[in-house]
This record gives sequence, structure tokens and C-alpha cells, in this order.
Amino acid sequence: MSERPTGHAVPGDASHAASDRPPASPAPEPSHAERCRTLLASANRGALSTIAAEPAGYPYGSVATYGLDDRGNPIFFVSLMAEHTQNAIRDPRASLLVTEPVPDGADPLASGRATLIGPLARIDETDRAGAQERYLAANPTAEYYIGFGDFVFLRLDVAAIRYVGGYGRMSWVDAGAYAGAEPDPLASAAAAVLGHMNADHAEAQVLYCRHLAGYPDTISATMSAVDRYGFEMIAEGPSGRSAVRLGFPDQCTTADEVRRAMVAMVGECRRRAAQ
Amino acid sequence: MSERPTGHAVPGDASHAASDRPPASPAPEPSHAERCRTLLASANRGALSTIAAEPAGYPYGSVATYGLDDRGNPIFFVSLMAEHTQNAIRDPRASLLVTEPVPDGADPLASGRATLIGPLARIDETDRAGAQERYLAANPTAEYYIGFGDFVFLRLDVAAIRYVGGYGRMSWVDAGAYAGAEPDPLASAAAAVLGHMNADHAEAQVLYCRHLAGYPDTISATMSAVDRYGFEMIAEGPSGRSAVRLGFPDQCTTADEVRRAMVAMVGECRRRAAQ
Repeated sequence: MSERPTGHAVPGDASHAASDRPPASPAPEPSHAERCRTLLASANRGALSTIAAEPAGYPYGSVATYGLDDRGNPIFFVSLMAEHTQNAIRDPRASLLVTEPVPDGADPLASGRATLIGPLARIDETDRAGAQERYLAANPTAEYYIGFGDFVFLRLDVAAIRYVGGYGRMSWVDAGAYAGAEPDPLASAAAAVLGHMNADHAEAQVLYCRHLAGYPDTISATMSAVDRYGFEMIAEGPSGRSAVRLGFPDQCTTADEVRRAMVAMVGECRRRAAQ
Repeated sequence: MSERPTGHAVPGDASHAASDRPPASPAPEPSHAERCRTLLASANRGALSTIAAEPAGYPYGSVATYGLDDRGNPIFFVSLMAEHTQNAIRDPRASLLVTEPVPDGADPLASGRATLIGPLARIDETDRAGAQERYLAANPTAEYYIGFGDFVFLRLDVAAIRYVGGYGRMSWVDAGAYAGAEPDPLASAAAAVLGHMNADHAEAQVLYCRHLAGYPDTISATMSAVDRYGFEMIAEGPSGRSAVRLGFPDQCTTADEVRRAMVAMVGECRRRAAQ
């Protein structure tokens, strides 16, 4: 059992009273490799950096849409006339920056982003069908020009990855770990889960914080993230605010499994409250 | 008088009946230099591309927040520990990509973006006060860490600019023209003007299209853009859809001036209709 979360203070508060339960192992969470795969799979456009011919050797940022191959390498479908295509043909060095959506008014530096670095090369005609399938899966509206003769498929073979999850949460991610990681199966359901939990299950969240997260003085709580391994809340009480993470008893890969896990966790809270 | 717009067909239609009024000079519109200045002034973050040390010479894209100096050069406030800062200190070659917001579900390649290319260098301590003022004007929430000792100000001195306004609307913009251009004074009011005109003045728009834009069979119209020089609409009629642009009789620098110009243009429509 690992109910004790990796609770860390929210800015402006370091005094939120935690229980005297002994610290257990931290709640499991996605690796940075998994977070990068999830981020890349949840978007279809980014900032592609290539090396310009003029001014010579300058890095050139442009908007590019992409799909992903099995190993998470971005596949682009680009006009031969576009600057980035000409740049890549001349010099394959490239990177792709993909960012989480930034909520209106939020600090953009608090959102996650990943930079995938590696050579960007044309995909052989023999592999065109597979590349086209992957690209269209992420960009269905490109169907109407997918047959254009002056467009080509490019693939960025990821060699290095920089991940920044927000302030002070960053690392270089091993390219092999990224290639082997799975996008979080809950990514597409996460927003609905958070909306539902925050609209209809405020009381359950307070119980989680009080009885499972080690913050017995919690008065209100808001869920801020959910993934296959667990979920995160901001707990508020008389002594301040705390960011907490709780792990699911077992990994959840569907919204329904999340629902059942959260119901079971409420039962566990009530048992503890009755002791 | 230049009532005849630069009307061009909307995809899927080439047959919308125009009037037999002789073509006049095209409606004035912002230059690409002005559009770039407006775009840069309306945002405060972009994708900064620098040259990485490892993998050596690769372009490295990262998220950066900026303000602008008098000539539209981006000013950054960055941690000395950040990758892009270290990259810029080692190799000043850089670019900044800034994109218009992409509406949900819209094609990201149809939105405007600009890439500003030039050397990225540390701002002298003697110029720190001015840089700080410009940066904070665009990033007020940075106030709480603006005094941090391990942060520095950098400026990108714009030497070349690539502007892409959407499909087939792109150019290299002269850096001097960009430096001398003014952001559109209506930029911050544009969304409200469009909302108001489309919610409450559908009839006026039909009159504009019928009597000033040369599309007498217009049945409905939607305003899609407004700037100091004029505005754009999608006109719909029995023969199809057309994108039209009309110039204001005089430049408008406030929403109130736009209102008066549009009222005057309705008057002109009624005079023509009565002839």
C-alpha cells in the first residue's frame, strides 16, 4: 500500500498540516518517456526547427503538422517548395517542439513541452503507404491533398529528447525509452474525468485527501490530472494548499476502470474514517 | 473611391456573380510587415530556435516568452541554466516563431505565423531597466521573479523575417520595413468588433456586399477580419461564396471610429440602392 503521496508544497504555502502516518513509497506516476509519448500522441502540430540556407546556418522555426510511427517518430507531409523542406533536404538536422495546450490566462512556462531532436529525412517511396496512413490518422483533413505530387513525407528519427513538464520538472529522456513507451491510454478521457470529478464528486476528493493522502484537515480539493497510474489534486485546508498525488490500486486503462477504482477508494476512506 | 474589393473565390466556388461595375483599385490592406508587427505585438510567447551543443549543431526548439522593443525586436527573460540560454551564449544564431491562435478544429496551416531570424545576444546591464520594462509590459506575471539573479535578458536583433499568412500567402519581409511598421491599433478590439457585427448587423453586411463590394446577389455575409484599413467578409448568394475586402473611407484607429465608418458606409449603400 502506498497511500502517502509525493505531496509537495504549492507556491505560497509550506505549512499545510500532514498526518503523522509514516511516509510510504511515493505514488507511481508516468515516466518522462511516457509523458513525452503521451504529449506527442495527443497533438498533431508543433514547431519544426531546421537549418536555414539564408541567413546561413541559422535555425529556422516553422509550423508543421505530423503523425507518429510505431516508435513515436514524427512523420510530416510537406510541400517541396516549403522552406523547412528545402532546409531538411540540404541539412537533415532538425527538432520538433510540441507543447501542451496552455489554458487562457495561464503561465505558458508551467505547461509541459517536449523537444524531439534528430535527423529529418525523406521517406522512401516504398514506405509511402505506411507513412500516409500514419499521417492521415492524425490529420484527417489532409486527405484532399494527400495525392499532390509536389508534397513529400519526411520522418524525424528521434535521437535525443528534452522534456520540460513545467517549472523545475525537466530531464533529457532516453530515446530508446521514448520509442518503447506507450501513450497514456487515459489521455483522451482525462479532461472528461476531471470535469466530472470536479463537478460532481467534490466530497470524494476531500475524503481522498483526508484519509489516503495524509492531509486530514482538507476542506476542499480539486482534481488537476489523471493518468493510468493515478491522479493529482490540489488540497485546501486551514493551513494552506498542497499538491498531492495518489496511485490507483491497479493501473486503469479506461474511464470505466477509473470510475470503479475511485469508488473503491471512497470505500477505503470510509473504512479508515470508521476506525 | 475604391469600392471594388480584391474579391477572390472561396474554395469550391468560382462562379459567384459580380456586378458589372468596372474594377477599381484593390481595397487597401496591411502590408506583411504590418501584419508581422501586429502578430508579434498580440502575443507574448513563441518557439525559440537555437543551436544545440549536443547533438552538435542541431536546431533546438523551446518555449520562450517575450516582450518587444521599439523596433519589434523580441526581448526574453531567461534562466542562465536553461538550454536555450546556454545555446545562445555559445552560438547567437536564433529564430522566434510566433503563431496566431488556431481556433478549435481549424486547420493550423491556415493561420498566420511569422519567423523572426537574427542573432540572440545578452542585453547589457546598462540597458536592463528598459528591457525589463518592455518584458514586464507583455508578461506582468513575471514580476515576482524579475529580480532573480540567475536570469538574464536577451534580445533577438531581427535580420530576416518569413511571414506565412495561410495557404499561398507568404513572403520574406524586409527587416527595416518590419522595424518601422506599427502594430494595428485595432488588433485588441477586432474580436469584439467581429462579434458585434456578426451578432447584430447582419443586414448591414449584406448591404456592403451588395452595393459596395460588387456582389448584388448576396443573401448573407459574415465578417472575418477587421484592421485599420478595412474589413473582410464571406459573402453568400445563390451562386456561391466569395471572400471580399472593403476599405474604410479613412483609416480607423479605434472601435468607435470603426462604428462611425460602418454607419457611414450603410448610408452610402442606401444612397446607391435608391439610385
